[in-house]
Amino acid sequence: MGTMRALRKTSKGRGAGLEEIAIPEPGEGEVLVRVHAASICGTDLHIYEWNEWAENRIPRVPMTFGHEVAGWVEAVGPEVHHVQPGAFVAAETHIACGICSTCRTGRAHICRNLRILGVDTDGAFAGYVVVPAQNAWVVGEGIHPDHASVMEPFGNAVHATFGTEGGEDLPTNPVAVIGCGPIGLFSVAIARALGAWKVFAIEPNAERRALAGKMGADLLIDPSAEDPVEIVTRETDGNGAEVVLEMSGNAKAIDQGTRMLARGGRMSLLGLPDGPVTLDLNDQVIFKEAKILGITGREMFRTWQQTTTLLSTGRVDVSPVITHRFPLERFEEAFETAASGHAAKVIMFPGS
Amino acid sequence: MGTMRALRKTSKGRGAGLEEIAIPEPGEGEVLVRVHAASICGTDLHIYEWNEWAENRIPRVPMTFGHEVAGWVEAVGPEVHHVQPGAFVAAETHIACGICSTCRTGRAHICRNLRILGVDTDGAFAGYVVVPAQNAWVVGEGIHPDHASVMEPFGNAVHATFGTEGGEDLPTNPVAVIGCGPIGLFSVAIARALGAWKVFAIEPNAERRALAGKMGADLLIDPSAEDPVEIVTRETDGNGAEVVLEMSGNAKAIDQGTRMLARGGRMSLLGLPDGPVTLDLNDQVIFKEAKILGITGREMFRTWQQTTTLLSTGRVDVSPVITHRFPLERFEEAFETAASGHAAKVIMFPGS
Amino acid sequence: MGTMRALRKTSKGRGAGLEEIAIPEPGEGEVLVRVHAASICGTDLHIYEWNEWAENRIPRVPMTFGHEVAGWVEAVGPEVHHVQPGAFVAAETHIACGICSTCRTGRAHICRNLRILGVDTDGAFAGYVVVPAQNAWVVGEGIHPDHASVMEPFGNAVHATFGTEGGEDLPTNPVAVIGCGPIGLFSVAIARALGAWKVFAIEPNAERRALAGKMGADLLIDPSAEDPVEIVTRETDGNGAEVVLEMSGNAKAIDQGTRMLARGGRMSLLGLPDGPVTLDLNDQVIFKEAKILGITGREMFRTWQQTTTLLSTGRVDVSPVITHRFPLERFEEAFETAASGHAAKVIMFPGS
Amino acid sequence: MGTMRALRKTSKGRGAGLEEIAIPEPGEGEVLVRVHAASICGTDLHIYEWNEWAENRIPRVPMTFGHEVAGWVEAVGPEVHHVQPGAFVAAETHIACGICSTCRTGRAHICRNLRILGVDTDGAFAGYVVVPAQNAWVVGEGIHPDHASVMEPFGNAVHATFGTEGGEDLPTNPVAVIGCGPIGLFSVAIARALGAWKVFAIEPNAERRALAGKMGADLLIDPSAEDPVEIVTRETDGNGAEVVLEMSGNAKAIDQGTRMLARGGRMSLLGLPDGPVTLDLNDQVIFKEAKILGITGREMFRTWQQTTTLLSTGRVDVSPVITHRFPLERFEEAFETAASGHAAKVIMFPGS
Repeated sequence: MGTMRALRKTSKGRGAGLEEIAIPEPGEGEVLVRVHAASICGTDLHIYEWNEWAENRIPRVPMTFGHEVAGWVEAVGPEVHHVQPGAFVAAETHIACGICSTCRTGRAHICRNLRILGVDTDGAFAGYVVVPAQNAWVVGEGIHPDHASVMEPFGNAVHATFGTEGGEDLPTNPVAVIGCGPIGLFSVAIARALGAWKVFAIEPNAERRALAGKMGADLLIDPSAEDPVEIVTRETDGNGAEVVLEMSGNAKAIDQGTRMLARGGRMSLLGLPDGPVTLDLNDQVIFKEAKILGITGREMFRTWQQTTTLLSTGRVDVSPVITHRFPLERFEEAFETAASGHAAKVIMFPGS
Repeated sequence: MGTMRALRKTSKGRGAGLEEIAIPEPGEGEVLVRVHAASICGTDLHIYEWNEWAENRIPRVPMTFGHEVAGWVEAVGPEVHHVQPGAFVAAETHIACGICSTCRTGRAHICRNLRILGVDTDGAFAGYVVVPAQNAWVVGEGIHPDHASVMEPFGNAVHATFGTEGGEDLPTNPVAVIGCGPIGLFSVAIARALGAWKVFAIEPNAERRALAGKMGADLLIDPSAEDPVEIVTRETDGNGAEVVLEMSGNAKAIDQGTRMLARGGRMSLLGLPDGPVTLDLNDQVIFKEAKILGITGREMFRTWQQTTTLLSTGRVDVSPVITHRFPLERFEEAFETAASGHAAKVIMFPGS
Repeated sequence: MGTMRALRKTSKGRGAGLEEIAIPEPGEGEVLVRVHAASICGTDLHIYEWNEWAENRIPRVPMTFGHEVAGWVEAVGPEVHHVQPGAFVAAETHIACGICSTCRTGRAHICRNLRILGVDTDGAFAGYVVVPAQNAWVVGEGIHPDHASVMEPFGNAVHATFGTEGGEDLPTNPVAVIGCGPIGLFSVAIARALGAWKVFAIEPNAERRALAGKMGADLLIDPSAEDPVEIVTRETDGNGAEVVLEMSGNAKAIDQGTRMLARGGRMSLLGLPDGPVTLDLNDQVIFKEAKILGITGREMFRTWQQTTTLLSTGRVDVSPVITHRFPLERFEEAFETAASGHAAKVIMFPGS
Repeated sequence: MGTMRALRKTSKGRGAGLEEIAIPEPGEGEVLVRVHAASICGTDLHIYEWNEWAENRIPRVPMTFGHEVAGWVEAVGPEVHHVQPGAFVAAETHIACGICSTCRTGRAHICRNLRILGVDTDGAFAGYVVVPAQNAWVVGEGIHPDHASVMEPFGNAVHATFGTEGGEDLPTNPVAVIGCGPIGLFSVAIARALGAWKVFAIEPNAERRALAGKMGADLLIDPSAEDPVEIVTRETDGNGAEVVLEMSGNAKAIDQGTRMLARGGRMSLLGLPDGPVTLDLNDQVIFKEAKILGITGREMFRTWQQTTTLLSTGRVDVSPVITHRFPLERFEEAFETAASGHAAKVIMFPGS
């Protein structure tokens, strides 16, 4: 089918390189997507930098990486019935087996045989990418094509904000968002859109704190200068936050999250810490009857329906979070920007 | 009203002494209970031994301790309408304020101004004890009076087994109970009565493991000789336990609990660790979407209704757990037995 | 304590009369409230008109009626600890026994021995009213005193909108509100504030439909001119409304509600039909796996916390619903207005 | 592939005939099952008798009917990966599209494009039947092959007993089962196995009532001789049944079900009434805050996991419900028996 440009890890080390390789062909149950937008995730930074996690996790090189993606279906493989060429789709990046016990009980996103697009398979920083037809979500009207690649991390935020118990604790309750990278920023806006009050954004980076304000946070807290536990407790009449959304992965922040949590409150853990984390289970979890919920991926596909509604109706506007755009060939600049601390979400456009 | 014998902490140190003191009078909204049975809790052992926790937690001496109690209402104070003298009652030991935000939203057992019977107030190792009328649960038919003082720790087990999300994950699912003290032993039987399959009991003490077998455990695991994570994983076809009930408070066991937990599973934490606990949040909580639930006390009073039904209908028989009985004056023997590792629940009878 | 004016049913027939009667005294556990605002509920219209329901339900005359009320605590009876004279409070009107099995399991609003303020006791269309201290909700900052008497019916709307299962089906889902009296109008705004999309308001009265638009409805439907089932179905791509809030009590509308409900959807029934209602259970409930939830009163007091937040933060503005205000002596005009079809919520001010 | 015997509707009228027809071939994603056991459902009786429902619902004749089935996978079509020839499977009979909004949100059993095996497709009263590979549930150890065809109606009972809200209201609570056909009988045993107390079985047929006793009902009620509402109310201290499982489809019984329901209780509707049903929504649903849940099919495939555990561990023994067995050629006798009122579940064995 011709060739395409692809950003590839060619060796097990820092960096990546653009190569001209064959356009892949969709197999049975797969679709070929012509990439419009592919955004950079923290995972992509790890792969680019080739840290310890990448060394242990990436099965092979060379490989094309990138997984936050939207584009047009160019071709479909055999046994694809519900998506047609020409459809504009975003990709769910959790590739589930469909037959393990978690898949069979409606929890495919934590499939026992889970594979990840752009980690376990060739990814989306390229002219084209192959994804399972099941994973191709038709974007529909009302969502700007340039914003569609962020539906995947936005879905992370939706899932974390609702939690795995349904989100009934969110409306009219105080919510603390710890860590205002893109997912934290999305969460601030989602919590507001779902009726939370009041929303605390806790983030040491001043630029990101300012973005949190734009996304609707009621209070901005700089944990490098103030004590977030004290502020959240005081501003909630001593109750604490009914919901804490932990997006930083910082061990100290996780501990603080348990301390600012209200009695009977819920904490969603999404940020990935670097190593084991030490917690005061007695006073901060057991006597408090805290609920600590691990969060990964998105419910397939309830989260995508929620994401689509929030974005297409304008309930949430992601524009402020999309701070930078680059053509694919300027990938080095894109990665530097994403890692700089002066950006939120960075999107690359292979076709531009 | 005359005098009574009471087991008292007379000084801030090890031990306790029997004293003859005035029978207390019930105040407004309170009832006076003539104690039939008062059982020894781990908390009482801490108070008796006067460990660091007791030093920090007990507000004053002298004080009468003991809180697992059942007996007859002897007298009622002003403004008590629904309990009459002569009623046989067991005591809920969480004394709630009734007006804080957690109380006002149906979670009185985690009241912001919580006081504990026999810790913050004079307790039940005595001829008589005063409790708030609200906390006096009429035992009703079908429960042996000698067993009624264990309704309080049994209620802990009920609450932990159901969890704070309703217990829908329990029936037909594998459940691992870590730590087979009295509450763990009760949990084994409760899980079986609610349709769990299969129930793993993990406990290093051979006598307690044997009791777990009597209570209905399907598999007994000695964690000092075998790897409980490996066994639970293997015996569940690699899925792990859908529900883990952590009753040991042992840091290593808590870590193992997260490792034997199924993807999407739920872990109830009731056992109190000695200090902070270090956990692998990434692989054992976040990627797994585990739910970690702190558990304390009993729902007031849904748990008491459940407890009453389980015991009065014979769905659960607590007899095997009640290993020793003593008159109050043999308290030294009672405490030694309770601490010996050769006992489960020890009950004292002040009237015998 | 002197005398006050009170609007009284003096005989079992249409109408009511102002009388000068003794100011009541608060008993044990009760507070005396100096009434600032008392709004007219549909129930009050029934009592005023003395229809069949009133004939069967009202235990005795003479009696003062009215139950939607806010005012200042003037005095407190014995055993009242947490509310002080001078506090500005609104009244929960469900007076629960506190000791039946529903009360003891956190569902006091459906107490087996329920009494209603202003129906079973003397009510609030008067200078002063006595309410149990438990039922006095401190209004707090941010809510206009003139609006506080509508916290009770607003709470009905909150409870119906969340439903008894937690409200997780509300955000990002289409919601149909059938019947736009005050509670339906509140529900429109609440659903919007909690992130629902899209909100259909179904109401034959053009003035009320216009108010629904002001409260945030996305689509206004006149069921006397259009087929609401067809419109809701079409506007939801054939799925139907995930949530239907039935506020009309109209038998035909209830049937239509089940027909516009999505597969797996939830319908809250709050409007009281005049008689038995005939439903197509097979196609509209069973094959669809509909959830039909009866709704009455407010969760005590979770709903009041939610109400307070929604109103005090400005998430919902009730001003458009409060269409008329009268001093108490103009009660005849007030009742005529409330019954006219040209009003939404009518408030009387005894002190003005 | 040769020919097989099949019980066919050859015309739109009463009865059916055995024909020798070609063994079907499995298409893409399908498996061919050699039928071991196929049991008769009420739906099959309707098709056999060709009542009004059948006239309207069955798309075409000739067709092979029957859908409760278990057997060995004989062959698999293209794109079938997880089931192999030789596996012993039972069939889920709801054939879902996989791509509609209910399917995409984990509710495939109420798929918008639902087809039913043996109703919309050729069924299982034959030597062989084709089913989608997705619908083939590997039975596993511990379940007698002769019992495996009843996993489908047993799953109905499991789903109705848990309800769509998770079943947390079941353990330790009184449960009334109305109608003791096979699904009602299964429900009695399931409720007992999940810790319900006490279980009322309401059924006019004396033989079926006796079977309900064998399945573990605590109280047997003959609604033709006694008032079930009065008995259930009295035997629950005036509270009513926390859970009512309506399996009869009888309009009067449905009304009685609402009346025996506790305040805040839950009623699962599974039995299909002949026509519209009239209910007292005010007193029996709204003021009571009843939850009325429509129930159809089985959760795919959580219910199958639950079913497998309940049967394979012996928690429930279905033997008493399987009252009759016939070879396929004695189908007339089988259908007469099933319709006679002297049978519960009747199974035909095509291979015998």
